[in-house]
Amino acid sequence: MHVTSERHLDDGVIERAFTLGEIPGILWTPMSASAPVPLILLGHPPLGLRAMYPRLVRRARHAAADGFAAATIELPGSGDRPRWPAVEQARAELRRAMEAGGPVGGEITDALILPLVEKAVPEWQAALDALLALPGIGGPVGYSGGVISIGIRLAVVEPRIVAAGLFAGSLVPAAMFEEARQVTVPLHVLLQWDDEGNDRQAALDLFDAFGSKEKSLHASMGGHTGVPQSAGEDAAGFFARHLR
Amino acid sequence: MHVTSERHLDDGVIERAFTLGEIPGILWTPMSASAPVPLILLGHPPLGLRAMYPRLVRRARHAAADGFAAATIELPGSGDRPRWPAVEQARAELRRAMEAGGPVGGEITDALILPLVEKAVPEWQAALDALLALPGIGGPVGYSGGVISIGIRLAVVEPRIVAAGLFAGSLVPAAMFEEARQVTVPLHVLLQWDDEGNDRQAALDLFDAFGSKEKSLHASMGGHTGVPQSAGEDAAGFFARHLR
Repeated sequence: MHVTSERHLDDGVIERAFTLGEIPGILWTPMSASAPVPLILLGHPPLGLRAMYPRLVRRARHAAADGFAAATIELPGSGDRPRWPAVEQARAELRRAMEAGGPVGGEITDALILPLVEKAVPEWQAALDALLALPGIGGPVGYSGGVISIGIRLAVVEPRIVAAGLFAGSLVPAAMFEEARQVTVPLHVLLQWDDEGNDRQAALDLFDAFGSKEKSLHASMGGHTGVPQSAGEDAAGFFARHLR
Repeated sequence: MHVTSERHLDDGVIERAFTLGEIPGILWTPMSASAPVPLILLGHPPLGLRAMYPRLVRRARHAAADGFAAATIELPGSGDRPRWPAVEQARAELRRAMEAGGPVGGEITDALILPLVEKAVPEWQAALDALLALPGIGGPVGYSGGVISIGIRLAVVEPRIVAAGLFAGSLVPAAMFEEARQVTVPLHVLLQWDDEGNDRQAALDLFDAFGSKEKSLHASMGGHTGVPQSAGEDAAGFFARHLR
C-alpha cells in the first residue's frame, strides 16, 4: 500500500489517496483519535471513485465524526482502472433492456454482477489486510453500501467484517439469494421504496433471505439517489452500536 | 382534567395520573424544562393502562430525556373503564379464528377495530385539548404506537399532530387503507418481520398506501413484542427531528 497524497479536510479529517498495486483507493481518518479506530469500508456503485467522491467524502466525514476511519477502493473496470470489455458489454445490454422497458433477464444480471463480485471481493480483502496493518486503524470493521452482492459475498467470506449496512438498490443475481442465507453478521438494510431500476419485491425477498438473526430493513420514500439524511443517521447509529 | 396523583421518578420525570371525565390517563413531563415542551401521545393496545404501564413509562422516560412530555389515556372498554360487550365479543371471535388457525375474516377485524377508532379518536382529541391547556405543554404534538388504525384516523382528523410513529402490528380494516391515503404528516412506521398475529404483506401494502411524502418503514426481526431497542432509538430520532 502506497500513500500518494495526504491532505487535511477542514473538519479534522485526514484524507489519504493510496494505491494498492494498481488499485487506487482513499482512506479517511479522524485527526483527534488517540487510539486505533474501527474502520468502515465504503462500498459504491461501479461509476468510478472520482464521480462518487462527493458522496463518499460525505459518508467518510460522518464516520470520522463518530470516531471511525473509512476507506474505499476503485472497483475493477471503473474509474482509472483498465476497461473490462465483458462487463461493459453486459452493462450495455442492461441499458438496452431497461430502455426497451422490458424486464432485465437473469443472464444479463449474472453477466454484470457475478464477475464483479468474483474480482472485487479479494481486492477488498487485500485492502483490508493493508489498512488493518496501519498503526491508526484497529477494527472492528464494518462494510457499508455499494453493490449489494459485493457486500453479501464480503459478509460471508470475510470474518473481520462484524456488521454490514447494505443498500438494496441494485440487481441481484439469483445465486446471491442463496449466499444471503449464509450471512450471519448484524445487518442494516436500506431500501428506496420507489427505486426506478430496482424490483421492490426482490429487495424484500432478499431481506427475508438473509440468515442474520439481527437484521433490520429501512425503507424511505424516493428514488435510487434520494436516500434521505435521516436514513444516513439511522445507519450511523447502527455502526456506532456495532463498532464501538 | 383532574390530576389525581403526582410523583417524581428518579430520573427527573414528573408522573401525573389524571382523569378526563371518566377516562384515566397519565402525563409525564421532564422536570428540567424551562419552556413549554412538545408532546408525544403514547398509543397502546387495548390491554389496559395498568398492564401496559412498564412499556409506557419506558417510552415516556425516553421522550422526557429528549425534552418532550408524553401522555396517554385508557382506551374505551379497557382497564378500569366499563366493559364494552360488542368489542369483547369481536375479540372472542378473533381469538377463536386465530386458534382455529384460519384467516381472520374482514368482518371480525371491522367489528373489533372500527368501533374502537370511532370512540377513541374523539377522546384522544379531548385529551389533547386539556393537555395543551397546561402551562408546561406547548406542542408540536406527535402520536406514537398503539392500535395503528387509531393513529391513522388521528393523523387524518387532528391537525395538531405533526408527525406520527406507527406500529404496523395490528389488524387493519380494509376501510383504513383508504383513510391511510389521506395521511400527509411525516410517518415513521415500525414492522416486526415475524409478527405472529400480523400479515406482513398487508403491513407493506398499508405502508405503500400512506399519502405522506415523507414516510419510512423500519422492519426488525422478531415477533410482535420483540421490537429491539435500536428501533426505539431510530423512532426517537424521528420525533427529535420533527418536534424540536
